[in-house]
Amino acid sequence: MRLVSEDEITAAERRLAGRVVHTPLLPCPRLGDDLGLPLAVKAENLQHTGSFKTRGALNALLALVERDTPPTGLVAYSAGNHAAAVAYAGHTSGLPTVVCMPTRAVSTKVTTVRRYGAEVLLTDDLVATARGLAAERGWHLLEPFDHPDVIAGAATVGREILAAGPAPDLVLVPVGGGGLISGIAAALRSASPRTRIVGVEPAGANVVSYALRTAGGTPPDRPASVADGLAAPFAGRHTLAHVRALVDAVVEIPEESILPAWAELLDATKLLVEPSAAVGLAALRAGLVETAPATRTVLVLSGGNVAPATLATLG
Amino acid sequence: MRLVSEDEITAAERRLAGRVVHTPLLPCPRLGDDLGLPLAVKAENLQHTGSFKTRGALNALLALVERDTPPTGLVAYSAGNHAAAVAYAGHTSGLPTVVCMPTRAVSTKVTTVRRYGAEVLLTDDLVATARGLAAERGWHLLEPFDHPDVIAGAATVGREILAAGPAPDLVLVPVGGGGLISGIAAALRSASPRTRIVGVEPAGANVVSYALRTAGGTPPDRPASVADGLAAPFAGRHTLAHVRALVDAVVEIPEESILPAWAELLDATKLLVEPSAAVGLAALRAGLVETAPATRTVLVLSGGNVAPATLATLG
Repeated sequence: MRLVSEDEITAAERRLAGRVVHTPLLPCPRLGDDLGLPLAVKAENLQHTGSFKTRGALNALLALVERDTPPTGLVAYSAGNHAAAVAYAGHTSGLPTVVCMPTRAVSTKVTTVRRYGAEVLLTDDLVATARGLAAERGWHLLEPFDHPDVIAGAATVGREILAAGPAPDLVLVPVGGGGLISGIAAALRSASPRTRIVGVEPAGANVVSYALRTAGGTPPDRPASVADGLAAPFAGRHTLAHVRALVDAVVEIPEESILPAWAELLDATKLLVEPSAAVGLAALRAGLVETAPATRTVLVLSGGNVAPATLATLG
Repeated sequence: MRLVSEDEITAAERRLAGRVVHTPLLPCPRLGDDLGLPLAVKAENLQHTGSFKTRGALNALLALVERDTPPTGLVAYSAGNHAAAVAYAGHTSGLPTVVCMPTRAVSTKVTTVRRYGAEVLLTDDLVATARGLAAERGWHLLEPFDHPDVIAGAATVGREILAAGPAPDLVLVPVGGGGLISGIAAALRSASPRTRIVGVEPAGANVVSYALRTAGGTPPDRPASVADGLAAPFAGRHTLAHVRALVDAVVEIPEESILPAWAELLDATKLLVEPSAAVGLAALRAGLVETAPATRTVLVLSGGNVAPATLATLG
């Protein structure tokens, strides 16, 4: 399987310039002191639509236009952040968009998708319904993570981390289907060979580490995690190839470690993130990633679209 | 009453360089589109201790040291953010610190103060207790807002807004005792005479607008606002002088407008702020501040130390 190249990442940077937020890499002295290492967060919760997904969706759409195959409409399936990202991409490009979301999707995520004018179709047969709609209407199905253009879009997160200063020693990345870590690894691996790139998966949504352990197998049970944004039903073929070739490790964290890390992150950084974004801190707190007092560490905060019911657990 | 000078603000910038977070001025395209104007937020919730108060407390302390009157200990009275700021200042300078806080102070704010090693004294007679302790121990009482060094520290927020690009047309600043707006106005007024500087007070904690209306009077009732960080018991003499001379207007917003604006701000910006920080948005939403589609507006987000019970109201 071909990996995303430096040129593809550079092309994504060019397409996305001025269209996505160059999110800040924020130092976290208080949390870093507490953990005993220099810590910063890449705040993709501050991205348009509240997650990094906007980068991949927009890059995939703009690449289609650039290659003279502009779509006449967009179709997506997603429980949340990719849905909003595709709705946003459709909105900014004036394309009609339909998004298939699960019937039990977080209500605020449905609201966000509708805010950008997309049609929402609630179904529990996401993939088949989306494929059927795309075929029927002749619209383009924008893949949630397993596509080189989506990975190249996510890679611009890695380029921005490199542009912010000396490359970190360790980058911790939440892993769902693997698109974000594939992109970040594609951007960082050759530019900074000594940076450790570690993915973090919840025990309840571990398709990537399961696939790594079982030569590409898919877990028998449907994913179910308090980190709802990471509950991808399968690891991608493209993403698995990137993870195998470029990523140092993918660790699994206990479900019960996620909400405490999430609450700590809110309190210490004052950034509103979703539980998925806290898995990197959970891995550090659980001692699953080796660090030293000099390990300059970046936590990638993948998104900020937290369910109100989750926020209410803090009361 | 003498106003804080440009030189005093420059001295504060020098003292605070590297000791406080140069907080980002973050564009808010989604919220701005919705309001119909170009909007950015100055994210002082990302400041050390989670509020702008750190600037004033540290500047006041460092000015004492610079003037060869270093204190042997610090005393403060505050319901929250100034308490944490003084605890932090004491902690970073190795000084023993005692903070008087009200018996019904938000528990997380007490925890924050203790995190920095300060002694907490719970009392409902804040000012007298603090003055007594300062006299008894020979320690320095760091004023919460009504002091030129505290105002000059807060003014560095204004300098950072100016340094971020063209001066905005409108700056909306939460007003408690008036320290923050005094500092911002001192920094902006002469540098950008056409920038409108507007303070926003909750109806339940309106000491500054009450004093402006009544030639310096104090409201008969104790302040009580959902924006707990703005519940100053009186306007300062220094701060009133600054507001009278340098501020365009102070508007009062209904209490019931605050939590909806707060919830909207969290959702739209993904920044964890306290209700006090949302009063500027509440004023815009209530139509209390005149704007046009070209009015480049900055909301100063004063802090992020929100009570868990407040977060729970979102569920």
